[in-house]
Amino acid sequence: MEKKIALLPGDGIGKEVMDGAVEILKAIEEHYYHRFHFQYGMIGGAAIDEMNSPLPQETLQMCRESDAVLLGSVGGPKWDKNPSHLRPEKGLLALRKELDLYANLRPVETVESLLDSSPLKREYVEGVDFMIVRELTGGLYFGKPSERNVKNGEHTVVDTLFYKRDEMERIIERAFQLAQDRKKKVTSVDKANVLESSRMWREVAEEVAMKFPDVELQHMLVDHAAMALIHNPKQFDVIVTENMFGDILSDEASMLTGSLGMLPSASLSATGLHLYEPVHGSAPDIAGEDKANPVAMILSTAMMLRHSFKMEEEAEAIENAVKHVLDSGKRTADLTRKGEKPFSTSELVEEIKAALADDHAIFNIMEAYA
Amino acid sequence: MEKKIALLPGDGIGKEVMDGAVEILKAIEEHYYHRFHFQYGMIGGAAIDEMNSPLPQETLQMCRESDAVLLGSVGGPKWDKNPSHLRPEKGLLALRKELDLYANLRPVETVESLLDSSPLKREYVEGVDFMIVRELTGGLYFGKPSERNVKNGEHTVVDTLFYKRDEMERIIERAFQLAQDRKKKVTSVDKANVLESSRMWREVAEEVAMKFPDVELQHMLVDHAAMALIHNPKQFDVIVTENMFGDILSDEASMLTGSLGMLPSASLSATGLHLYEPVHGSAPDIAGEDKANPVAMILSTAMMLRHSFKMEEEAEAIENAVKHVLDSGKRTADLTRKGEKPFSTSELVEEIKAALADDHAIFNIMEAYA
Ligand SMILES: [Mg+2]
Ligand SMILES: [Mg+2]
Repeated sequence: MEKKIALLPGDGIGKEVMDGAVEILKAIEEHYYHRFHFQYGMIGGAAIDEMNSPLPQETLQMCRESDAVLLGSVGGPKWDKNPSHLRPEKGLLALRKELDLYANLRPVETVESLLDSSPLKREYVEGVDFMIVRELTGGLYFGKPSERNVKNGEHTVVDTLFYKRDEMERIIERAFQLAQDRKKKVTSVDKANVLESSRMWREVAEEVAMKFPDVELQHMLVDHAAMALIHNPKQFDVIVTENMFGDILSDEASMLTGSLGMLPSASLSATGLHLYEPVHGSAPDIAGEDKANPVAMILSTAMMLRHSFKMEEEAEAIENAVKHVLDSGKRTADLTRKGEKPFSTSELVEEIKAALADDHAIFNIMEAYA
Repeated sequence: MEKKIALLPGDGIGKEVMDGAVEILKAIEEHYYHRFHFQYGMIGGAAIDEMNSPLPQETLQMCRESDAVLLGSVGGPKWDKNPSHLRPEKGLLALRKELDLYANLRPVETVESLLDSSPLKREYVEGVDFMIVRELTGGLYFGKPSERNVKNGEHTVVDTLFYKRDEMERIIERAFQLAQDRKKKVTSVDKANVLESSRMWREVAEEVAMKFPDVELQHMLVDHAAMALIHNPKQFDVIVTENMFGDILSDEASMLTGSLGMLPSASLSATGLHLYEPVHGSAPDIAGEDKANPVAMILSTAMMLRHSFKMEEEAEAIENAVKHVLDSGKRTADLTRKGEKPFSTSELVEEIKAALADDHAIFNIMEAYA
């Protein structure tokens, strides 16, 4: 296959981990006879410095003409005092809005060899494998009015949780589709005992569930979900929820694996043009030192291959290579224990490439004998 | 001192744990020469059955005439199909509203001997000792409009996050007062990067902090707080936040100790009439079997002695007695490990009474020699 991929390294360690991801994609090209056209664009602080905008028109245009977008990370102390419209994060928010990326997917899967890094006991997190699907463009973070008022000397403030029924339907449907390719269970999280929006959410979930008789639907209140993620995370397959609940729960869930450096994410649109990025930030404190963990970025490219290009085999090959390398004890500094020598970013990428090549060689031999 | 205490056992295990709490209070009366007048009132399912109201007028009146209110728990499957106004939970919500209980306090303290029951590794939860202060009468759960609309065939829904500045001020002030008697640190949790209400919250926190120069103020975003409760809970002393964030975070935090049966709570008003209750529910599955863990209810009475009656010594005596009993391996069924014989509710209460008496005897001897 031939695909155009927009690469937006952004700031800080974004550049380094993006370099690693490109290496891996080139290996996939070679092993599986694909052709990837890479185009680089600027976003975030880098774009502010060079073009005085966190999301230059050229970058947006280039993304629109691509088949998928890979993003590193944005932000850093250098731009912390900038006015609101010249903040790096604004570039990412604007891109999400422009591309209508309404579904944020965050897989949370624990790796056997890294269970020691988790704050939770082994028996609680062993075998955890779920996906949080968060609505990303509606709810309390976008509703109007969001303003202060003064009346008879009394100061008040209001924010608004607003949803269209259609917005609920499309994200819940997406969650059910994802569950069909997984363990066929959807946990819909709401606060239906208190919020009218949650009661509508629950109804829509029930309706959508009728169209997926092979997928089980479970409802859970958001405060209970915050507990269940800790005391019984293995029960989950796909969790779907509105924007703010998803923000809180997905960050909570990110702690189960023990390293933010491990977690990829996807943001999907209705148009088919999706964005993939690591969950971690730009980590300015270690930027440029070849120390960053490239795994989250590399697993994000695997998600791209799966969700944008339907290259399931290639995606799994990357995931297996990463697992193989981590299981053999090779790790960047964020995951090493006392006395262990950490691998650099580029060394770890080389290891993952080597594992990919091995895996592919074995696959070819097996094919030849099949 | 002479005090009137309203006792509302409620439903399920509420009655059993209330009996235990009364035993302990009678022991305190005796050891410290106080006089407690107990008056029983009905609430929840029990009140619906007898008087066709989850909060009978008599009960409310009795509470108003008391110095403090102790509540067991309400609810059960028997009333699950009742119409909304005849649900047990409505009794508790109405009582909170009527008494204007705007500040919900939830201490989270791990007990050395129970660290094995926590889903988190020992090194993460050892020495954890913080208090979550949740605003309980404002925000998204009460704001209007909370309704559905249809316009040009498009179905939408809205909920409203509304706060008066004064409501923020009184709860944040309360948190700073509590921190003064603790480790002198307040973590104010908001979503100031997105919500206007959170930006006002942060300003008010800054203003209040000026009045408490001995207390350190830290701001934290709610999604970050959801992570920090897992990866570094020891950093916290007093966490203060608005209603919904507090709902989610306090339930998440309740998992750190490993048993909901351990956690007390207080709901404070501006009038000085406060309510105390365990965090756990009515556990209808084990009701009437003398199996329930009475510790949360007993620690709630300790909170009452401290916050309503300023009996700090008596409160600490109860807390020490509970700790002593748990440390000596005596536990109800929710906390025993395989092969251990559980104590019944009444047996555990007897043990705590005995520990109180011992502690008091030692205290008297020391006084005599002082
Ligand atoms: Mg977040
Ligand atoms: Mg709750």
